[in-house]
Amino acid sequence: MIKYLLEDEWKVIEDRFHPQYQRSSESIFSIGNGRFGQRANFEETYSGDHLQGSYIAGVYYPDKTRVGWWKNGYPEYFAKVLNSINWIGIRVFVDEIELDLNTCEVLSFWRELDMKSGMLHRSFEVKLSNGKRIAVKASRFCSMSDDETAAISYRVTAKESAQLRVQSYLNGDVANEDTNWDERFWLDRGAQADTRLASVAVETKKTGFLVAASMITRFNGELPQDASSRGFFAEQTYSKHLEAGEELHVEKFVGIVNSLNYTETELLSASQTSAKRISEIGFESAREFHGQFWDKIWANGDIKIEGDIPAQQGIRFNIFHLNQTYTGEDARLNIGPKGFTGEKYGGSTYWDTEAYCLPFYLNTHPSDVGRQLLVYRYNQLGKAIENAEKLGFSGGAALYPMVTMNGEECHNEWEITFEEIHRNGAIAFGIYNYIRHTGDRKYMAEYGFDVMLGICRFWAQRVNWSAEKNAYVMLGVTGPNEYENNVNNNWYTNYLAKWCLTYGLKSIIFLKETYPQLYSEKTEKWSFNEAEETSKWAEIIESIYLPQVEGTNIRLQQDGYLDKDQLLVSDLKDSDRPINQKWSWDRILRSPYIKQADVLQGIYLFEHHFDLETIRDNFEFYEPRTVHESSLSPCVHVILAAKIGELDKAYELYLRTARLDLDDYNHEAYQGLHITAMAGTWMSVVEGFGGLRFRDGLIKLSPVLPKAWKAYSFRISFRERTLLVEVSQDETKVSLETGESLEIELNGQLIRL
Amino acid sequence: MIKYLLEDEWKVIEDRFHPQYQRSSESIFSIGNGRFGQRANFEETYSGDHLQGSYIAGVYYPDKTRVGWWKNGYPEYFAKVLNSINWIGIRVFVDEIELDLNTCEVLSFWRELDMKSGMLHRSFEVKLSNGKRIAVKASRFCSMSDDETAAISYRVTAKESAQLRVQSYLNGDVANEDTNWDERFWLDRGAQADTRLASVAVETKKTGFLVAASMITRFNGELPQDASSRGFFAEQTYSKHLEAGEELHVEKFVGIVNSLNYTETELLSASQTSAKRISEIGFESAREFHGQFWDKIWANGDIKIEGDIPAQQGIRFNIFHLNQTYTGEDARLNIGPKGFTGEKYGGSTYWDTEAYCLPFYLNTHPSDVGRQLLVYRYNQLGKAIENAEKLGFSGGAALYPMVTMNGEECHNEWEITFEEIHRNGAIAFGIYNYIRHTGDRKYMAEYGFDVMLGICRFWAQRVNWSAEKNAYVMLGVTGPNEYENNVNNNWYTNYLAKWCLTYGLKSIIFLKETYPQLYSEKTEKWSFNEAEETSKWAEIIESIYLPQVEGTNIRLQQDGYLDKDQLLVSDLKDSDRPINQKWSWDRILRSPYIKQADVLQGIYLFEHHFDLETIRDNFEFYEPRTVHESSLSPCVHVILAAKIGELDKAYELYLRTARLDLDDYNHEAYQGLHITAMAGTWMSVVEGFGGLRFRDGLIKLSPVLPKAWKAYSFRISFRERTLLVEVSQDETKVSLETGESLEIELNGQLIRL
Repeated sequence: MIKYLLEDEWKVIEDRFHPQYQRSSESIFSIGNGRFGQRANFEETYSGDHLQGSYIAGVYYPDKTRVGWWKNGYPEYFAKVLNSINWIGIRVFVDEIELDLNTCEVLSFWRELDMKSGMLHRSFEVKLSNGKRIAVKASRFCSMSDDETAAISYRVTAKESAQLRVQSYLNGDVANEDTNWDERFWLDRGAQADTRLASVAVETKKTGFLVAASMITRFNGELPQDASSRGFFAEQTYSKHLEAGEELHVEKFVGIVNSLNYTETELLSASQTSAKRISEIGFESAREFHGQFWDKIWANGDIKIEGDIPAQQGIRFNIFHLNQTYTGEDARLNIGPKGFTGEKYGGSTYWDTEAYCLPFYLNTHPSDVGRQLLVYRYNQLGKAIENAEKLGFSGGAALYPMVTMNGEECHNEWEITFEEIHRNGAIAFGIYNYIRHTGDRKYMAEYGFDVMLGICRFWAQRVNWSAEKNAYVMLGVTGPNEYENNVNNNWYTNYLAKWCLTYGLKSIIFLKETYPQLYSEKTEKWSFNEAEETSKWAEIIESIYLPQVEGTNIRLQQDGYLDKDQLLVSDLKDSDRPINQKWSWDRILRSPYIKQADVLQGIYLFEHHFDLETIRDNFEFYEPRTVHESSLSPCVHVILAAKIGELDKAYELYLRTARLDLDDYNHEAYQGLHITAMAGTWMSVVEGFGGLRFRDGLIKLSPVLPKAWKAYSFRISFRERTLLVEVSQDETKVSLETGESLEIELNGQLIRL
Repeated sequence: MIKYLLEDEWKVIEDRFHPQYQRSSESIFSIGNGRFGQRANFEETYSGDHLQGSYIAGVYYPDKTRVGWWKNGYPEYFAKVLNSINWIGIRVFVDEIELDLNTCEVLSFWRELDMKSGMLHRSFEVKLSNGKRIAVKASRFCSMSDDETAAISYRVTAKESAQLRVQSYLNGDVANEDTNWDERFWLDRGAQADTRLASVAVETKKTGFLVAASMITRFNGELPQDASSRGFFAEQTYSKHLEAGEELHVEKFVGIVNSLNYTETELLSASQTSAKRISEIGFESAREFHGQFWDKIWANGDIKIEGDIPAQQGIRFNIFHLNQTYTGEDARLNIGPKGFTGEKYGGSTYWDTEAYCLPFYLNTHPSDVGRQLLVYRYNQLGKAIENAEKLGFSGGAALYPMVTMNGEECHNEWEITFEEIHRNGAIAFGIYNYIRHTGDRKYMAEYGFDVMLGICRFWAQRVNWSAEKNAYVMLGVTGPNEYENNVNNNWYTNYLAKWCLTYGLKSIIFLKETYPQLYSEKTEKWSFNEAEETSKWAEIIESIYLPQVEGTNIRLQQDGYLDKDQLLVSDLKDSDRPINQKWSWDRILRSPYIKQADVLQGIYLFEHHFDLETIRDNFEFYEPRTVHESSLSPCVHVILAAKIGELDKAYELYLRTARLDLDDYNHEAYQGLHITAMAGTWMSVVEGFGGLRFRDGLIKLSPVLPKAWKAYSFRISFRERTLLVEVSQDETKVSLETGESLEIELNGQLIRL
């Protein structure tokens, strides 16, 4: 745990400069708007250790796979989110000495992320090597209301009289730190600059994505004095002698567009139009529109916690980052595990989206946002079928990739790429979850059915009959607990497969009855032999092997788990943790310790299949064995702990998930934030403490209040309605804020709102 | 299978040029002398596809590990056998057109490996682009009798009158094709040349190995006319006008030495002395000494097969390559899976050495050759203990590496590096095997004990108690069958561990009783708590879990194997084979198919623990499931098939192992030859058809004769004796050729020789 940031309900604050944590701060203070994102790099040159990062949603590079030992079936490339045109750059020279916080004396420093308004502020005072002091106040935002634009206000005040020269620039000659083969990913497509407007266009190698950025800079409201461009680079400059106390106010207006939305010929002028649009509105008004957008998000999506500032700050930090990572406007985009806050995990799509993010967006946004996430997978069904074929499956079986940008598999560890196939179940569950929440059953007919069919076909081929067990078994898988690999009969995966096949059968009946014409079209399209295929599915449902600890309620993680030394996390020395940093992989694999408890993940998803005693027994078995070294782990435990009344445990784990990055529990915030896990944090409040469930079209609530809190409240979007839930020590109040009257169940009682 | 070479009892012949198989031919026609080895590259320039390779035993480069996803415990580097100074180079210009078989018309071509004398011959006639024809006759050898020297005779005959210019050179500026990061491995340490002598010295980066080569060239017996050197390069040249039918005879004498045997200051002059030595002896005499050395090898090590030329050629090809790869003169050297015939597998040491090569050397050479292989591991014990510590073991537990050059682990696939730990058992078995064969029990006292202790300590920590099974179990291993990874209770590994601990206990008793002083010294040196540690060992021996198919004799490969779809190799389509080239890794892992049957490997090693029915039952279960996609697989099946009387099966598999590279069964001879598997071929004749066993100090023989053979014979070196075994349709004759009289068991009858 690293604590250096101030606690505040609406802000994240660094009140003096911590160069040793600069990479972490750059992640934590990141801003974005769903279309692009920007690490909290300094506008001025910074020569100290840092990671420059400007990322654009959906624009990636197929970096040639690096592998020690090739296995047949590996993908050729790993798709990387790209560090793209640096649009924030403002170089400052004071009597020709360049401002650089790494080389001058920092007299004061303040960095502030205002989550309410989506603004990044920074102010500092420094003394340069020539003895001259200056003060800077910088603010910037990536507009949520006009997502092709961003703006920076950068005020320099001279403390002693000095000659100031300022260069505002765009630079497309950037690299990724995590390139596999030291390649450059960008080609220069030309730059141009005059004192009114400057632009840079670049193109990714191989994928051929085009990106253009344009800027307009004002210096105390005036045009630049000079401008130039070359290759990847365009700049506008201005010089002025400042008397002591005098200020130079730089305003930089930026337009950023890419070829997902524009043709090659439109691109450059589109970026210029965007830059002009925001410059004409002006910094303050643009910021206001942007702020209004955030107001709307908070109006629906906020969770208020009274009496516990760290908890309040934590949850808002999570909600803030989720909303600036994904807005649901474009079905080609998705949610990378680190969003736009770092290079790690390539910015690609994982099972995190369906398992963690979808419930957040369903509950805090109109249903079309969640729908986009599903359509994303629907559009990639063809690639999922190809992916399964590469592994030897046939007949339209679909295996969605572990990691993807465009539907193709990117990951290359055999135990994950080939074996962590539970992702296919999460994607199916996402369809179920969406329809359960929205009531949009037509989605199944139009889109969901095709995906379900591919997934069911995969499971039907992936199991095999064991004469030994007299059951269908599933061999060689890796569950969400990645501290075991290549296991047989992972309970979670087998259970999920069984559920998928069951839901698949239901979908067929629904479609046949409700959309018979569509059903016969799809049957033909997919060469679906209903009788033969569904009877196989039914057989598997009937006799798939689900390991259990004999004589108990405990579902067994996988075959052979009980052969392990049954040690608990409490047997671990502090110096052994986190085990993924302290132990060899060999030792981790052989240990009984669990990264994230997949049996509990399954019980969380299908809670209504289990009685309370079973839930409790499994929680009590697995929680003491779980090291929570996946960011996705604690939230599920919070929810189940709350369910069985273990409130203190739930609260302890809640803080871990809510402040994972703010307090940098795992010493890895420098790589970027755990964006997808943040959705789990939201779930841990609303489903954990709030006890929210959806069953048979009914909202159920059974709130509890952690000791440390005076009260909390949250809103739920549900079928064109907004409900406000307010929980205090005395009572729970549920109000219908918009939409038609409905019945809900509160603490087991039906009430009408 | 690729057949393009002629069959002959003593020779391998390519009777016309096959540029498409040039890489394979370069491997197959390789020559070496245990100290260095040379692929059958052409002396003259060849611009067609080929792999240049001159390798020096024990000289390696620690190539930075390439990995997609790092796991804690991985080594930093993979040790690579190095392509080093090209010493064969002779450039030929005919009227200034360079001779290059890739660019001229090849009128005739003959390449011949004479295994009897250890010579590589080549003759060809070509027409150059200027219409001139020349004929070349080239011969070369790496001297076995003076292993720092080599010589080439290269005769050029002009068919039309022409001006000939010939450049004889040494070139140290060479690269490995398989470099991980496109690095060059060599530093230039200077070259010098005059018309008498030319030399090049080079140094490996990081490891600092020095290599020097010197050459003396004669042209029709005359000195070169010119000489020059620069950087990595030295040359001697000669020009002459040849009339039609006239010949230029180039003789090149080379000395190659390295810093394993010389100090930096001695090195250059040592290489020069070697070159002078062989040049003074002259090509023909040096070749004669070399040939006499081979005569001695064949006198003891030959296997004669009558009536089956392919089988005869195959076995001699194997014996030939083994002898030129390892001579046992230096305990710092070992036997790489590809010897000096290619870059693949890095030229490093694997478990192949103890499991396959050791019996060959024990039976065909004086005992000190086999002993060197054991001392090699003894000398690396400290590194094996460090390796175990890196994985979390303690207290002097030793895990020998999967792949090594100097004792450090080089391999980085977790399922192999961390899990294929049966190698530790093979190394222990090597000690047992050596003592069984030689009777040299003192070896145990002086060296073997330390290694056994480290290995037993490893097994004692590697198992854990399973309350579930009420037994010790071993989780997360990979057996020799690498088509299953991370399995629990691999029967072979568990059985081997149990045997190791048993043999460890016996070694302690032996040492205490026979060498009490040494025992107490070793006890102290290794902080060995006899009472505590051995009682744990005894407990494990007593109750280690050994999976078996219920109600049968069949030992079960690992937990859960019977859950697989029980398909047989006969169910595979031809187009699916080899599965490691046709199937995804996922499909291979989930299939029931076995790369090499480790249960049979165990039964082979401990045959006397099992009755014939058990051997038969297990063979009949596993052989139909085994795809033999490891070169180490068929030989064990030959031996067991012969044992149970399945002679046709044995013969079929014998051909596969004996002619694996000559007929290029797996389309991979281009990468280098399967040197260590060649020892298995030897075993398959002598232990398979010959039925040779060693029990309680007694040689046992029970020969059978494959239908295709008229007769066969082989010799055995055993405790200062040489026995000749001759098997024909009528009788088996065993003669004692050297050494004292002894009793042996022939077909169950004791006889005295």
